[in-house]
Amino acid sequence: MPTLFHQPLDVASRFVRLVMGEYGVEAELEVEKVWLRRHDFLVLNPAATVPVLQLDEAVLVGPTPLVSFLAEAREDGGAPLLPRDPADRAEVRRLIDWALLILEADVSAVLVLEKALKRQIPADQGGGAPDTQAMRIARDALGWHLSYLAHLLTGNDWLTGERLTQADLAFGAAISSLDYLGEIAWSDHPAMRDWYARLKSRPSFAPLLADRVTGVVPPSHYEDPDF
Amino acid sequence: MPTLFHQPLDVASRFVRLVMGEYGVEAELEVEKVWLRRHDFLVLNPAATVPVLQLDEAVLVGPTPLVSFLAEAREDGGAPLLPRDPADRAEVRRLIDWALLILEADVSAVLVLEKALKRQIPADQGGGAPDTQAMRIARDALGWHLSYLAHLLTGNDWLTGERLTQADLAFGAAISSLDYLGEIAWSDHPAMRDWYARLKSRPSFAPLLADRVTGVVPPSHYEDPDF
Repeated sequence: MPTLFHQPLDVASRFVRLVMGEYGVEAELEVEKVWLRRHDFLVLNPAATVPVLQLDEAVLVGPTPLVSFLAEAREDGGAPLLPRDPADRAEVRRLIDWALLILEADVSAVLVLEKALKRQIPADQGGGAPDTQAMRIARDALGWHLSYLAHLLTGNDWLTGERLTQADLAFGAAISSLDYLGEIAWSDHPAMRDWYARLKSRPSFAPLLADRVTGVVPPSHYEDPDF
Repeated sequence: MPTLFHQPLDVASRFVRLVMGEYGVEAELEVEKVWLRRHDFLVLNPAATVPVLQLDEAVLVGPTPLVSFLAEAREDGGAPLLPRDPADRAEVRRLIDWALLILEADVSAVLVLEKALKRQIPADQGGGAPDTQAMRIARDALGWHLSYLAHLLTGNDWLTGERLTQADLAFGAAISSLDYLGEIAWSDHPAMRDWYARLKSRPSFAPLLADRVTGVVPPSHYEDPDF
């Protein structure tokens, strides 16, 4: 069976797990403590990042190469969760980059590091007490990103229209990680709540919602599809 | 004609210009001073980043969505500079992400900002004197990245083997920008020099080498294919 090296709250890892779930691709999950820079992992990926999917025939590094590989393997048959129209595809890819790069740098990477990873990382490798100023700046940025998400959802069931695409899975990955950390005030975001409830009820989401991270307890609504 | 909004030393913009040159896609170039957050540009791309390609039928934002769109438009005919084998494609995409995200964050974005952009950006928007400590850290990281590039080129004409791919254009974009800034000590990197000389002699490279940035003069070898 393939092996997916991942981190439980890492957004790119969650995105890949959701796509694999939707595509029906199974893998054994291995949590990789990337900060340890384990030799055998660096051989697979010298950049020391997750996700990495190890198959018999290839090692797939990073969310975009990995998901493109899986989608192209399906082009003959099932739906790869990408629109057929080239301009619509470009819009889905723009939003994936937004969730995995921009929202990630502004918000998700900061809050996951400060609230979860720093508890696990040794002090001499960057662990320790959270940086409250960095967290405050990230939370300010989150407000702006959630307004943009609400704008995208105006009049739509899914981010780019009437159909679920990889863009929903990328933003869903990001929101689920922030929700685990108690960072989403759902009562302020009814449209996003409806969208996220639809995502959460998909079977591909169940394994993510069952994950737990050492030392961080998610809010009571985290697993509930009718939150 | 399409319009490409870009920045002359921005690596993602250079990558897109090279791909467009190889594909024979022409566009009018507009230098976008992204730090001004011009309203009409934010309408095209609320993230206020370049490159953005404005076509009649679509607005393409960001290097991966943009290049995927152009490559898919050609799938029926010409060579999109991607290998046919799915695992080889994933390797090309991994290296594009390396050049445009990892090398970018560690090195290119820092040196382009400190040495070129800060001369143009008003002081109250982040311009001013360069941060010499940030530049020192970026230069240390550059040494490691160039060793990795040399490792990839061992025994190969191009980064992933015998054929030019989008990965060469992505790394070529990054190296050309750093070379403009005088950051590449070519005598220390003979294998990379041979590879870059092959790239530089391609017609797609000529417009990049002719560009000049306000206040920063490139080294005398910058334009010379036999440097």
